[in-house]
Amino acid sequence: MRRAARRPDPRAIDEREFHRWLARRLPAGRTGPLPLGDDAAALRPPSGTVAVISTDSLVEGTHFLADSPPGLVGRAATAVSLSDVASKGSRPVGVLLAIVAPPGTPERWAREAVRGAEREAARFGAHVLGGDTKPGPTRAIVSTVIGWGWPRRLAPRSGARPGDVLLTTGTVGRGGLAFHRLGHGPRQRALAELLRVDPRVREGIALGRFADAMLDTSDGLADASRLLAEASGVRVVVDEDRLPVAPALRAGVASPGARRRLAFFGGDYELLAAVPPGSVARALRAVRAAGGRATAVGSVGAGRGTFLRSNGREVRMPRAGWRPFRRSARR
Amino acid sequence: MRRAARRPDPRAIDEREFHRWLARRLPAGRTGPLPLGDDAAALRPPSGTVAVISTDSLVEGTHFLADSPPGLVGRAATAVSLSDVASKGSRPVGVLLAIVAPPGTPERWAREAVRGAEREAARFGAHVLGGDTKPGPTRAIVSTVIGWGWPRRLAPRSGARPGDVLLTTGTVGRGGLAFHRLGHGPRQRALAELLRVDPRVREGIALGRFADAMLDTSDGLADASRLLAEASGVRVVVDEDRLPVAPALRAGVASPGARRRLAFFGGDYELLAAVPPGSVARALRAVRAAGGRATAVGSVGAGRGTFLRSNGREVRMPRAGWRPFRRSARR
Repeated sequence: MRRAARRPDPRAIDEREFHRWLARRLPAGRTGPLPLGDDAAALRPPSGTVAVISTDSLVEGTHFLADSPPGLVGRAATAVSLSDVASKGSRPVGVLLAIVAPPGTPERWAREAVRGAEREAARFGAHVLGGDTKPGPTRAIVSTVIGWGWPRRLAPRSGARPGDVLLTTGTVGRGGLAFHRLGHGPRQRALAELLRVDPRVREGIALGRFADAMLDTSDGLADASRLLAEASGVRVVVDEDRLPVAPALRAGVASPGARRRLAFFGGDYELLAAVPPGSVARALRAVRAAGGRATAVGSVGAGRGTFLRSNGREVRMPRAGWRPFRRSARR
Repeated sequence: MRRAARRPDPRAIDEREFHRWLARRLPAGRTGPLPLGDDAAALRPPSGTVAVISTDSLVEGTHFLADSPPGLVGRAATAVSLSDVASKGSRPVGVLLAIVAPPGTPERWAREAVRGAEREAARFGAHVLGGDTKPGPTRAIVSTVIGWGWPRRLAPRSGARPGDVLLTTGTVGRGGLAFHRLGHGPRQRALAELLRVDPRVREGIALGRFADAMLDTSDGLADASRLLAEASGVRVVVDEDRLPVAPALRAGVASPGARRRLAFFGGDYELLAAVPPGSVARALRAVRAAGGRATAVGSVGAGRGTFLRSNGREVRMPRAGWRPFRRSARR
């Protein structure tokens, strides 16, 4: 075993110090029967609920840059997992963060990332419960969110039935526009826009009471429609005229073809829900009461496949924009 | 938006295909009220239990190499989180895997990693419930384990009381010896040994019935003793003569000083428990009945600090071996 030749940098991450700092952030007992900073976090399930968990990753070079503001990275890393839990109609309660950073990374970076995660979690009454830091050549943050769901409101992707109406929260195309701007303006600002994920937690809990099936549109509405159609064995038709296209996309991109591609590109993190026709009005009201917006954008029928109704005729749904592992922007 | 110039490599990871493959691996319904492959996993808590979750990371270059067998990497990534959940006396039920890998990484690599994780989880009746793959410059696997614990058996680090007896499972020094061999033999084999974490899940569940405090010795027994003493506000004395030193360490390293350093180096992933004196005999029997071994190695007293009793006198406990973020092997 080798003794260290170099003096450690006192500002660099020290896993133990970082955990102590993390453990001091919340009063013991507030989040569950184990103090923060222990080997694991413990959470008491409310009566009648099930635990709903999801994990997602943001990686330097793929989703953010070395000089992206760490608070924004931590916030986004948390938001993407919050979105998954929300899409199962569930209430998030806890966040675990696994942070990878090069040796010598200032502890400030990790602390800012945690603060960003905490702020995002707190918006929905959830808390950062713990985490892990490991040295590695590139920064990455993996967030795991745990929440409580209701067994009959989990809205599995496979639950859509012919006759259901498709609702989407918010707008489409925000993520596509941010991606478009990567090539047409200040890169750092466009990347920051891509990181501004606003998970539809309250909307998800509201829609879970009515939806047969629900999922988030992290890879775009076209992609989510396809996943829904495949998992449920149904035919999905989206009505292009009814799409709530983001105003900035309408204003910022002149070509209708480009606009359509960007609308379906992905990175929107809205919710897409299949709701029985008799519940649509109540579901729309519930989303408004939760402070959000939802729009009926299509329908579920018997059959297979996903289609776009455009100017009165049905065309095949455009492909999702981004499949990063295949080294291609579009397939 | 740029169209792809290159044809995608059909053997490379495609996140969607990978998720489909993952979802096909377990019959729907077997693990909970949501099918695998949905946006999140859902698990029904057994009556009277709390959810216990922990997350941990293995990073290429820090914990494994690009050519380390992926099955072993997936197994180890799962084992380290299983160990944390076990240290809270809890029964693991589900594993989520977040895999980062460079674009073009063969999907085979990720599948083998998942299979390794599944085999490890299955040893304890748990399942891989889902995961996430993202492109990034370096491979990393983050595992999150969820289990069910019993509120009065969580054995927080802060629960040790004067009079408690310290028990450790297994042996000490296995991790230190593997690290030692990194500098004295075939590197790949030594790295594989470091990855061979054998989480003490059954032992943890058995000890949880008796322990006031428990944690794993991922950073070594000296380090775990210190964490226990600090969190509980107690004085810990470990008796060197009673340490169950790994036979391979006794046989493989001649110098007593080096042997001691390696015994406390870390990477053992045993459990260290503080048990009231009246329960020690039952706790030892319970561990044996669970197929494991445990040894009384020290005591908890009033006061502060951690000490080693060696040849009749008390010396300060050696420091843990490995604090990776500080760019030093020892501090």
